[in-house]
Amino acid sequence: MYDETCIFCREIANKGNAAFVYRGLNILAFMDNAPIEEGHVLVIPRNHYENIYDIDKDIYLELQLAVKRISIAVKNVLKTDGLNIGQNNGRVANQVVMHYHVHIIPRYYRKKINWERENANIDDLEIIAVKIRAGIKEVKL
Amino acid sequence: MYDETCIFCREIANKGNAAFVYRGLNILAFMDNAPIEEGHVLVIPRNHYENIYDIDKDIYLELQLAVKRISIAVKNVLKTDGLNIGQNNGRVANQVVMHYHVHIIPRYYRKKINWERENANIDDLEIIAVKIRAGIKEVKL
Repeated sequence: MYDETCIFCREIANKGNAAFVYRGLNILAFMDNAPIEEGHVLVIPRNHYENIYDIDKDIYLELQLAVKRISIAVKNVLKTDGLNIGQNNGRVANQVVMHYHVHIIPRYYRKKINWERENANIDDLEIIAVKIRAGIKEVKL
Repeated sequence: MYDETCIFCREIANKGNAAFVYRGLNILAFMDNAPIEEGHVLVIPRNHYENIYDIDKDIYLELQLAVKRISIAVKNVLKTDGLNIGQNNGRVANQVVMHYHVHIIPRYYRKKINWERENANIDDLEIIAVKIRAGIKEVKL
């Protein structure tokens, strides 16, 4: 359930090197460090699962509920006009890190999305993460 | 919970005009009639919810479990190399039908994906749907 060669296991789940918006017993959510759009969040299981086929059913459902909760918080806090929720399985489907993860990507009418990804500054990500963390606490499902 | 102006409520949930792969009490899944790739499936709640923000929590979780089950069936039956799972919220995020739906999109190394969508023949969709229906019954979660 821990894969030393996996960057999410090692850097995120183990070392905690991320701007977290949520840390649960089984689920973690944090700012993507190369965001497609400002406010781009990733939601992952703490344990290593590769994809939608192999992820434990109960962890999967707990994670989906976190996705709903965080999506509402991101929309409210960042005043997004829309959100893309995406989850890629397999390299052919653009999965880069082979640890199951769901993308929550804000969309705004005033901005054209930049599919070219650039690394963000961790301090900038933390400023957004603080707001989303507070927003999550306000969400009633 | 039924919106006469919504094409999914009227044509799919009410009239049953689709090549279905799954029909449950609360959840429906069917072949997209303008597939991005062969085997493109949509999963929807029977009742009308617009997006991830407003969909009932229990229906949402039941739907996510159907997405996992159908994804495994699609991979096994169509021998896909990967799958993109996507769910768009808001017109700015490319949501066209304003009834919550999750896309399951097969990916193959041998084929380049055609993001330009063309209407498919219902008989061709039904041939694939029959296989996926059988595959779903084999999936143990």
